Amino acid sequence: MLLADIGNTHCHIFDMNQVEHLTHQEALSKYGNAALWYISVRDGFEAQVAHYPQWRNISNDIFLQGAYDTMGVDRKALCLSADEGIFVDAGSAITVDVVEGGIYQGGFIYPGVRAMLDAYASISDQLHTSLNEVVDLEQLPHTTKDGISYGIIAPIKALIQKHSKGKPLYFTGGDGKFLAHFFQDAIYDDTLVFRGMQRVIKGSKIC
Amino acid sequence: MLLADIGNTHCHIFDMNQVEHLTHQEALSKYGNAALWYISVRDGFEAQVAHYPQWRNISNDIFLQGAYDTMGVDRKALCLSADEGIFVDAGSAITVDVVEGGIYQGGFIYPGVRAMLDAYASISDQLHTSLNEVVDLEQLPHTTKDGISYGIIAPIKALIQKHSKGKPLYFTGGDGKFLAHFFQDAIYDDTLVFRGMQRVIKGSKIC
Repeated sequence: MLLADIGNTHCHIFDMNQVEHLTHQEALSKYGNAALWYISVRDGFEAQVAHYPQWRNISNDIFLQGAYDTMGVDRKALCLSADEGIFVDAGSAITVDVVEGGIYQGGFIYPGVRAMLDAYASISDQLHTSLNEVVDLEQLPHTTKDGISYGIIAPIKALIQKHSKGKPLYFTGGDGKFLAHFFQDAIYDDTLVFRGMQRVIKGSKIC
Repeated sequence: MLLADIGNTHCHIFDMNQVEHLTHQEALSKYGNAALWYISVRDGFEAQVAHYPQWRNISNDIFLQGAYDTMGVDRKALCLSADEGIFVDAGSAITVDVVEGGIYQGGFIYPGVRAMLDAYASISDQLHTSLNEVVDLEQLPHTTKDGISYGIIAPIKALIQKHSKGKPLYFTGGDGKFLAHFFQDAIYDDTLVFRGMQRVIKGSKIC
């Protein structure tokens, strides 16, 4: 079974073993003739793959109790990967979603690390810097670079911890591994969205 | 006595009664011939006002124990306005600084509200929205607009609360009043930087 999570810039494809990150064109060239289930947040993608009869869009089958209408299908699939937890997808944006007993409780959106660094740079040249990836979150910063690095990571960490209340904490996405290491007992897994898709496929017998 | 806090885009002038926000040119036209003490973070400003002999730069007199070299003089003056507290200056950037017993403990920088909204918009058209200024921080959001508004305010609120430990919480700056209302017992005062300058002037007898 092949599963694909179609984003705005990339296709993430899971062969039940590992995840491949491809451009849309690369994905179609390599897997266009394979049987594949996909979800997509990309406008017009379904029309683009109309010529590939073995590609099946299961976005409308992804039902998450309590979710809101405009919530991205990838976020819903991620939240379906376990019945309880805080789900963090850290990419160009960072989404943080809370699920209790299989029911979506709500969530929020934070700019991704790159967008945050660009935001500082847009304010003033003096705030144009790179991330200190090993910034110490236990000490208040004493430099501009650390003040910015801390300002990106510590606020969202404090808020996630406030919501955790003993729930499992799951990370996925391009910056997921990096962010997860700032938390104790965080679980990083780049297959979570696909695990959610698999649960839907098994549960709804759409395969 | 006139005091001025020279920023990158505006001059903030305090006449011991109220604060005026002027462009640099407006400030010089209106107050160029008046006796005035100023601090400045604007490169080249001292040279620009060399023709105004009554304008006196006291930036080098602003000494905050524990502060770091490149810390903006306006942040230092703000931190000198009281011996103990968390000092939030919410403008194009939001600085958060902690002072205990008159000694600077460190601080961090967060993008201002406008820069955060622009950061979301830069990621995706779907994240292009305005702020819900009355977003409920006690409820996890269920819309994109609220998820973003919450994502801007709730993380920095959680981090400030983590550091507060009973210290007074002071807000200043253009968005200071707006942000302060999300906190219990926050003090908003647009004269704090000038209060810090006044304490330096009185203490060091530079007047």
